Amino acid sequence: MPAVRLLLVLDLAGVFAFALDGALTAIRSARVDIVGVMVLGVITAMGGGVLRDLLLGVTPATFQDWRYLAVATAGALLAFFLSRQLTHLARPIALLDAAGLSLFCVIGATKALEFGFGPVQATILGAITGVGGGTLRDVLMNRIPTILTLDSHLYAIPALLGAAIVVAAAIGGIGAWWVAVAAALVCFALRVGSLRYRWRAPAPRNFGSGPGPPETG
Amino acid sequence: MPAVRLLLVLDLAGVFAFALDGALTAIRSARVDIVGVMVLGVITAMGGGVLRDLLLGVTPATFQDWRYLAVATAGALLAFFLSRQLTHLARPIALLDAAGLSLFCVIGATKALEFGFGPVQATILGAITGVGGGTLRDVLMNRIPTILTLDSHLYAIPALLGAAIVVAAAIGGIGAWWVAVAAALVCFALRVGSLRYRWRAPAPRNFGSGPGPPETG
Amino acid sequence: MPAVRLLLVLDLAGVFAFALDGALTAIRSARVDIVGVMVLGVITAMGGGVLRDLLLGVTPATFQDWRYLAVATAGALLAFFLSRQLTHLARPIALLDAAGLSLFCVIGATKALEFGFGPVQATILGAITGVGGGTLRDVLMNRIPTILTLDSHLYAIPALLGAAIVVAAAIGGIGAWWVAVAAALVCFALRVGSLRYRWRAPAPRNFGSGPGPPETG
Repeated sequence: MPAVRLLLVLDLAGVFAFALDGALTAIRSARVDIVGVMVLGVITAMGGGVLRDLLLGVTPATFQDWRYLAVATAGALLAFFLSRQLTHLARPIALLDAAGLSLFCVIGATKALEFGFGPVQATILGAITGVGGGTLRDVLMNRIPTILTLDSHLYAIPALLGAAIVVAAAIGGIGAWWVAVAAALVCFALRVGSLRYRWRAPAPRNFGSGPGPPETG
Repeated sequence: MPAVRLLLVLDLAGVFAFALDGALTAIRSARVDIVGVMVLGVITAMGGGVLRDLLLGVTPATFQDWRYLAVATAGALLAFFLSRQLTHLARPIALLDAAGLSLFCVIGATKALEFGFGPVQATILGAITGVGGGTLRDVLMNRIPTILTLDSHLYAIPALLGAAIVVAAAIGGIGAWWVAVAAALVCFALRVGSLRYRWRAPAPRNFGSGPGPPETG
Repeated sequence: MPAVRLLLVLDLAGVFAFALDGALTAIRSARVDIVGVMVLGVITAMGGGVLRDLLLGVTPATFQDWRYLAVATAGALLAFFLSRQLTHLARPIALLDAAGLSLFCVIGATKALEFGFGPVQATILGAITGVGGGTLRDVLMNRIPTILTLDSHLYAIPALLGAAIVVAAAIGGIGAWWVAVAAALVCFALRVGSLRYRWRAPAPRNFGSGPGPPETG
């Protein structure tokens, strides 16, 4: 299997994971009907790429590719019909979601570099590719995006780190496939580690410097 | 009156209905001032077309045409000054809103096809043209967009169906004006029927399969 | 110091003020971590310009200029580390925010005119440049954008007025730098005056025509 095809398969796997996770989140947290489940699942899966492309100034690409729409729709439909059974699979779904985050931040940063954006912008656009879909979903579900709060453990920071590794390697003249793999693995490990060990990003001092706020999510 | 001019008049009627309805919703539900009424009315009327154009990758067209802005502003101003009187006209306003939805989904799908987008994308973009403005308004008013919930009865589904009819006819080589009229009528009838007979889209099983949730809206 | 450089310095001062104010608002009102503070600060500072450029149909320009990102990041970081001390500086920060609003509406309207947009559109785009960032921040913080409500006193209206003055002068053939300065000063004075004397925009009659609603913000 050539590398381009492998990348497509991995990207579609990320889309599937995000759609499944986004649709399940919608079912758990809001009084949505099938339209809401499908819309929120597809937006979780494809919103990050669309936001990135709008900031790049290009026509949103994933939206034009029917394979992305089909895979996102399949993930959301699966969540709709099997929501009860999937509730017991929270842990593997969280791993899939971390895998999607890792792939998206690497792919997003790579695309931004290809379009000639600077290193800081490419890093940010990589992270936006990873976290933008879930952020749009949370806004539509009328809650503060979890990536902005302490409840998400580390989510945006692994995406920024993964994107930054790709960008730093590109500046150093290294654009090999194993850099992308390594960057995705670092993002994945940091995300999963933060879930496992309950790492959190620092919070502003207004919230006290003691043992931290109680768990709410 | 030539067909192009008729289409413009119908489109502007839809903009007017959406602006009126959006502004009245704002007045009813939030502690807004005249800026809020105008902004929410105009966004309800023009947001769907702007979202569609951003996804098409073109400069938002309706925003550039002063007639759309003028008609949307007039609808929102009317709601501001006559909000009490208009409260008694909920039923005709709901019909106007359904007419706007029907026109927008047909026009949006047609525009997406003209720009060379695929059938699935054109159907989705038609629906987004119809429902996007109200969705943006609800997000700004800090509530879950009603089109995602059971409270809206059928709203996105008629828009998807209307857009799909236009797209299917275009694939079959039929681009006549009566196809657009028929598609709009199907969307309109399904929307109004769902309000009259309280049809709802299926909900995920988490909400129980009994007699359905109590009416809240 | 040539005029172009002065304009850049003023623009960056506005970005700094908006980032500081946006980050402090986030710290005060939501359970955010450092990611949330940085994201909300930077979006407050740069969101208005990005929205304007999306509506103009051009690649968001401020996002591509590293100086804007650097200054916005610095403002948000300062708020993160010095949030307690800065709480006592609410008044000078409100003045800085009014200065940012005044600069942004003038710069936004000028840019829209340069791209050939009509007078009404240029006025609206100027106002969006000024108020768009705070609106996006409020949406992400899960509250109704204050510019839509009575709580903001006059905020969008000074921005519209400042932009309208630039546009009217341009129509009259006057594009001199002192017009821009005068427009910004009018916007600034009206904004600060509305805070000092608690001016409000009219509200729809549903809220009663008595002495007005109680202060909530």
